Amino acid sequence: MTTILPSYVTDAWWTPAAEVASTAVRDASTGETVARVSTEGLDLGAALEHARTVGQASLGALTFHQRALLLKQFALALTERKEELYAISARTGATKTDSWVDIDGGIGVLFTYASKGRRELPNTTVYVDGAVEVLSKDGSFLGRHIYTRLPGVAVQINAFNFPVWGSLEKFAPAFLAGVPTVVKPATPTGYLAEAFVRILVESGLLPAGTLSLVSGNVPTLFDHLRLGDLVAFTGSASTAEGLRAHDAVQTGGVRFTSETDSINASVLGPDAVAGTPEFDAYVKQLVAEMTSKAGQKCTAIRRAIVPTASADAVVGAVAARIAERTVLGDPRGEGVTMGPLASLEQRDEVLRQVGKLEAAGGEIVLGSTDAPEVTLADGSRGSSPDGAFVAPLLLRFAPGPDAVVHSTEAFGPVSSLLTYDTVDQAADLIARGGGSLVTSVATHDPAFAVALVNRAAAYNGRILLLDRDDARSSTGHGSPLPSLVHGGPGRAGGGEELGGMRAVLHHMQRTAVQGSPEMLTALTGIWHAGAASQPEGRHPFRKSLAELRLGDQVISSSRTVTLADIETFAEFTGDTFYAHMDEEAAAANPFFPGRVAHGYLLVSWAAGLFVDPAPGPVLANYGLENLRFLTPVSPGDSIRVELTAKQITPRETDEYGEVRWDAVLKNHEDAVVATYDVLTLVAKEPAAA
Amino acid sequence: MTTILPSYVTDAWWTPAAEVASTAVRDASTGETVARVSTEGLDLGAALEHARTVGQASLGALTFHQRALLLKQFALALTERKEELYAISARTGATKTDSWVDIDGGIGVLFTYASKGRRELPNTTVYVDGAVEVLSKDGSFLGRHIYTRLPGVAVQINAFNFPVWGSLEKFAPAFLAGVPTVVKPATPTGYLAEAFVRILVESGLLPAGTLSLVSGNVPTLFDHLRLGDLVAFTGSASTAEGLRAHDAVQTGGVRFTSETDSINASVLGPDAVAGTPEFDAYVKQLVAEMTSKAGQKCTAIRRAIVPTASADAVVGAVAARIAERTVLGDPRGEGVTMGPLASLEQRDEVLRQVGKLEAAGGEIVLGSTDAPEVTLADGSRGSSPDGAFVAPLLLRFAPGPDAVVHSTEAFGPVSSLLTYDTVDQAADLIARGGGSLVTSVATHDPAFAVALVNRAAAYNGRILLLDRDDARSSTGHGSPLPSLVHGGPGRAGGGEELGGMRAVLHHMQRTAVQGSPEMLTALTGIWHAGAASQPEGRHPFRKSLAELRLGDQVISSSRTVTLADIETFAEFTGDTFYAHMDEEAAAANPFFPGRVAHGYLLVSWAAGLFVDPAPGPVLANYGLENLRFLTPVSPGDSIRVELTAKQITPRETDEYGEVRWDAVLKNHEDAVVATYDVLTLVAKEPAAA
Repeated sequence: MTTILPSYVTDAWWTPAAEVASTAVRDASTGETVARVSTEGLDLGAALEHARTVGQASLGALTFHQRALLLKQFALALTERKEELYAISARTGATKTDSWVDIDGGIGVLFTYASKGRRELPNTTVYVDGAVEVLSKDGSFLGRHIYTRLPGVAVQINAFNFPVWGSLEKFAPAFLAGVPTVVKPATPTGYLAEAFVRILVESGLLPAGTLSLVSGNVPTLFDHLRLGDLVAFTGSASTAEGLRAHDAVQTGGVRFTSETDSINASVLGPDAVAGTPEFDAYVKQLVAEMTSKAGQKCTAIRRAIVPTASADAVVGAVAARIAERTVLGDPRGEGVTMGPLASLEQRDEVLRQVGKLEAAGGEIVLGSTDAPEVTLADGSRGSSPDGAFVAPLLLRFAPGPDAVVHSTEAFGPVSSLLTYDTVDQAADLIARGGGSLVTSVATHDPAFAVALVNRAAAYNGRILLLDRDDARSSTGHGSPLPSLVHGGPGRAGGGEELGGMRAVLHHMQRTAVQGSPEMLTALTGIWHAGAASQPEGRHPFRKSLAELRLGDQVISSSRTVTLADIETFAEFTGDTFYAHMDEEAAAANPFFPGRVAHGYLLVSWAAGLFVDPAPGPVLANYGLENLRFLTPVSPGDSIRVELTAKQITPRETDEYGEVRWDAVLKNHEDAVVATYDVLTLVAKEPAAA
Repeated sequence: MTTILPSYVTDAWWTPAAEVASTAVRDASTGETVARVSTEGLDLGAALEHARTVGQASLGALTFHQRALLLKQFALALTERKEELYAISARTGATKTDSWVDIDGGIGVLFTYASKGRRELPNTTVYVDGAVEVLSKDGSFLGRHIYTRLPGVAVQINAFNFPVWGSLEKFAPAFLAGVPTVVKPATPTGYLAEAFVRILVESGLLPAGTLSLVSGNVPTLFDHLRLGDLVAFTGSASTAEGLRAHDAVQTGGVRFTSETDSINASVLGPDAVAGTPEFDAYVKQLVAEMTSKAGQKCTAIRRAIVPTASADAVVGAVAARIAERTVLGDPRGEGVTMGPLASLEQRDEVLRQVGKLEAAGGEIVLGSTDAPEVTLADGSRGSSPDGAFVAPLLLRFAPGPDAVVHSTEAFGPVSSLLTYDTVDQAADLIARGGGSLVTSVATHDPAFAVALVNRAAAYNGRILLLDRDDARSSTGHGSPLPSLVHGGPGRAGGGEELGGMRAVLHHMQRTAVQGSPEMLTALTGIWHAGAASQPEGRHPFRKSLAELRLGDQVISSSRTVTLADIETFAEFTGDTFYAHMDEEAAAANPFFPGRVAHGYLLVSWAAGLFVDPAPGPVLANYGLENLRFLTPVSPGDSIRVELTAKQITPRETDEYGEVRWDAVLKNHEDAVVATYDVLTLVAKEPAAA
C-alpha cells in the first residue's frame, strides 16, 4: 500500500498511524495511485501554537532584510532541486510549460520578494506608512502610521492547480512580514507541495517554527484560530463562503482573504479587426488561456467578449490555432502541449458545467465533450479511460440578458464567446461577472481603452491592455506577477495577494501613533524634527555606521549670497532664467520679490557648507528626495544649513549602507528656504588606519 | 403631536403619512419629546438607486479637487449656522464642549479633507498608487496600480453619540472619492443629523444625488445592496456582527467596514510616578475621557492599566480631580461640565454593565450607581427622574485572569483600574481587550514606550504616547483626528476610517493595470517613459497649461565637463569633497573611477541646458523629487538632458498649476547619469501680449 503523505508540524515530520483511513490520490493521466493522505491524529492546535510562539520568535529576531535574504536562499535551494519537482509535477497532469509556471514561477516569487524586500523595506522590523502628520502648531505632537506584524500565524488554504506557486506566493510576503506560515495544500496535488516543503526543510535554512505543512483535511482548523491569525484562501467561491462564515472570522478578528475563481473576461476592441496585430494577439492569448494548465487557472478567460462584426473571425482563428498547435495527452508523451485535468472528479465537474452552459443557450462552436483521443506516455495515440482529459471547448452565446454565462465556471479548457456593439455594452458584460481577477482588452485605440477601463476597473483586480506595442513582451492575461496585486472584488473573493510590498502589509496591522518627536524617533528609527540632536563633537561625516547615531548633526556657518554670485552661477551653468537675471521681470513674477538666487545654487552651496571633504566613511551622495523651495533668497540674504542624520540602514551583504540626512536651509531671518533629504552611502566600519 | 422627522431621499424631503406608527425621541436631561421617527412607506430601493445613478453621475463629472472645494463650501455653510446646531445638540445631553467635539469636529473633518484632498490628490478622477513596475526588459510592457471609485453608494450606519461628526467623517472621504452617501443616523439623536443635512440641502451646494438621509430604521437595507456599494457602520460589536453576516456582505461583494466600541486601555508607565508630569497628564486625561460626552465615546478609556505601586495614587488623584472639576447636570444649566447619557435606556444599560463588572470582582472605588443630584436647566440643584444621569464611576480589579473586565463595556462614565508589574503583563492586558480603537501610554521612558508599542500595536488602531513634551499639545486619547486612521482590529470592528487619503481609497477599488507606456499614459494622465514625446516645435517652457501636452519635450545639446569646471564649481560652492578633488582618494572609493563631477554641478548644468530663460508661462521651479545619481561623470565626459512634461495639474482656484517634468541626464555614451522629477508652477493661460 502506498505510504501516507507526511505532514511537517512543530518542526518535525509526522505521519498518522498506518491503520487509519486515508484517501488515495491518483495520477491525472493514468489513474495510478500516487499517494494517500490523512491527518487523523494530528494535533493541529499544537502545530499552530508552535508557529505562533517559536515561529514568531524566530522571525522577530530577524529584520526585513535578513528575512529577504533567507527568501533568496530558499529560492536557490529549490532551484537546485527543481528537476525532482518537475518529475512529480507531471503526475498532476502538468506539461513542462505548466510546470515552469508553477515551479519556476513560485521560485521567481521568492526571488522577487528577496530583492524588492531589500530595496523597498527598511532594515528593521517596523514599516512606516506615509508622511509625518504635524498635530500641534509647535511641532511637539506628531502623528505617524506604522505597520507591525500580526502576532499569529498565516494559514494557507490552497487550490490544487498550482501546488508550488500557490503556496510560495503566499509564503514569501508572510515570511517577509515576520509571520510564520502553515501550508494546507489541496489533496489532489498535495504530494507536490510536500516535495517542495521537504526540499526547504532539508536545506536546513528554515528558522524554527516558520513553515509547517498539513497534508490532508483539517476540518477543525478555524476552531483553533484567533485574533492575530490570518487565513489566505484560494479556491472556489462556495468554499470561501463557508469558511468566511466561521465565528473566528465573523467575530474573532481572524483576517480572511480569499482569491476565488472568477468569470474573467477578455475584450476585443472594435478597432482590432481581423488582420490587425491586436486581433492576432487576442486569439493567441485566448488559445493560450484555454489550453495552459488545461484551463485550470482561476485567471483563465471564461468570457471572450468581441464585437459582433468580429465574432465569426474570432471563432475561425481560434479553431485554426488550436488545430495547428494543441496536442492533448499525457505530459510525459512526446510533443504533448496540453495535459489532462487534475482528476476524474474535475473532468466530470467541468463537463457538468459545460452542460449547464449549453442548457442556457451556449452553442459549442469548437471542440466536443466526447472523450478525446490523446497522446499517451509512450507517444502513441489512443483513448485513456482513467485519464482526466477534456478537449478545448468554445461556446457561443447569442446576445441577451442570460445570467448563466456570467456566473458559471467550467474550470477547464472552456471559454464562452459573447458579442457587444458599444463600449457601454462591453463594460456591462464585464461587470456582470460580479467581480473578476482579471480582464484583458486587445485594442490599439487609447480612447476605447480609457473608456472601458474607467467603467470596468472597479470590477477587476487586474486589467491587461494588449496591443502591437506590448503583445510580444506581455506576460499574458492569466499570469499574476509578484509586483502586481492578484485578487479581485466580489466573486473573485474580495482579497489581494502579491503586489510587491502590498502583500507584506496585508500581514501586518496599521496603527496610527501619536507622540512627541523624541518618542516617534525611538519607535520608528527615523529622526523627527524636534527630537534631540547632537550638533557638537565630531562631524557626522567622520562617523561610520557603527558610530553614527540618529540626530547627529551639522549646523553650518552662514554665507551671504550676492548678485555677483547669482551672475557667476548663471554664467557657469547657463541657467539664465529671468527670475535670476532680470530685476523687473522677476519682480513681476507672483512668487519673487525681484532677482533671486537659483535653487540649484542654494543646494550646491548647502553641500559646500555641510560637507566634510577629506576621505572618510561617507562614500557617496547617491541622491536627493523631496526638495521644496519655500522662501526665495535675494541678493544680500545669507543662508545656512542644518543637516541631521535621519535614517540609518546598514546593508546585510555590503560593507556599507544608506544614511538619509534631513537638510534644512534657513535664511538670516530664520525662515526656512528649502527642505530636502540627502541620500548617502556610508561605510559600516571606520577605515583601517 | 410632534411631527415626524423627515428623510431626504431622491433629492427631496419625505415624511411618512401622519397616521403611521412612530417612535418618540426624548430630551436626555428632561425626558420631553423632541421628535418622532418612522420610515414606514419609504422606498429605500429607489433612494439607493437614485444615489447610484444620479449621485454617481454628479460626482463623476467632478475631479478630486473640485469635490474637495465643495467640501470646503459645505464646511463654511455649516459654520455659518452652527449656533442652530448647538441648540439642538444640547437636547441630546451634550455640553457645550461636547457639542464642539461633535459639530466643530465634524466641520473640521470637512475642512481637512478639502485641504488635504487638493494637496495630496491629483486634479483628476483616478488615483495612481505606487511606482511604475517595469515588466519587460525593453520597457514596452509596464504595470501600474490605479484606484477608481466604487460604482455604488456608501451607506453610513451611525451611532447615537456623535450625530454630526460621525456622519461627516464618513461623508467627506466618500464624497472626495466620488461615491454618493446615504446617512442612516441612530434614532435617539437623528434629529441633529437631520438638522445638519437640512443646512447642507438649503445651502444649494449639494450636487444631485450625492447626499441622502434616512431618518429611522431600515431593516431591509442590506437586501437592496450589491457589489460596488459600501456600508460604513459605527456602533456595537454585536450589531456589526449581525449586519456582517448578511449575504450582501458574505457573498455579494458589498464592502462592510465597522468601527465598534472597544475596551480601550490607558497605561501609566513605571517611570510616571506621582509627582511627575506624566502622572498628572495621565490622571487629567483619564478624567477627561470618563466625563466628556458622559463617557459615551467608542474611544473612551475603559481600562486604566497602572503599576501596582501607583494604583492608590491614581485612584486618589482621579477622585480629587473629579470632585474639583466635574459638575453633572442639564447642559443648559450654568456651570455644568458633564451631561446625562443619551437616553434612559442607555442609563439602564450602563448600570447593568456596571453590575456585571461588580459581579466579576470589580470594586467601586469612586462614585456610586445611585441616581445623582444634578444641576438643572435653571441652575438649581436637584434630582431629575426623567434625565439619564450617571455619576463618574471607577472600579478596581485585583490582579487575576478574569475575562469580564476585558470584554464588558459600560458605555458611560465608567472605567476599571487594573494593575501590572512588567511590560509583558501590561502588553498582555492590552491584548486581552481583543482589539481596540486606541491605547494611550503615559511615560517619559522611550525604552518602555518602544517595548510596549512593539507588543501592543497589532491590537490597536491608534496609540497615543503621552509625556511632558506633548501633554499640553496632545489632542487626547479619545479624539480621532482626520489625518490618522480611526478603527482597530478584532473587537474594534476590523475597519479603518479617516487617516487622510487612506479613507478616500477605502471607497475605491485598487486595480493593477498592465500595458504599453502609451496606454498607461492615456489612462493615468502621467507620461510614462517610452510613450510618444514631442521634441519638436516650440520650447515647452513657452507653453501655458492650456497649450502644454504630456510628452512635450526638450532634448538639449550636450556639454563637456572639464577638470577646470569641477574645480571652478568646488571653489564656488565650497564643496571640496575628495571625490571631486583628489584623484588618488577618489579612485580608492568603491564607486568612482577617479575624480568625478559634483552631482549638484550636473543638475545645475542640466537646468542651464533645458531652461528657456525669457519670461513666459513657467513661473518657478518649486522643487525636485526622486533624484538618483546612477553613473559618475568624469572629466572629458559630456552630458545632455531630456526633459519631458510628465504630469499637468491645473489648480482650481489659482491662475496657475503644477507641472511635473521627467528629467533624464545621459552621458556621451548614452548611459543614464541621473534621473529626477522637476516640479514647476506654470500659468494656465499665455500672458496677455
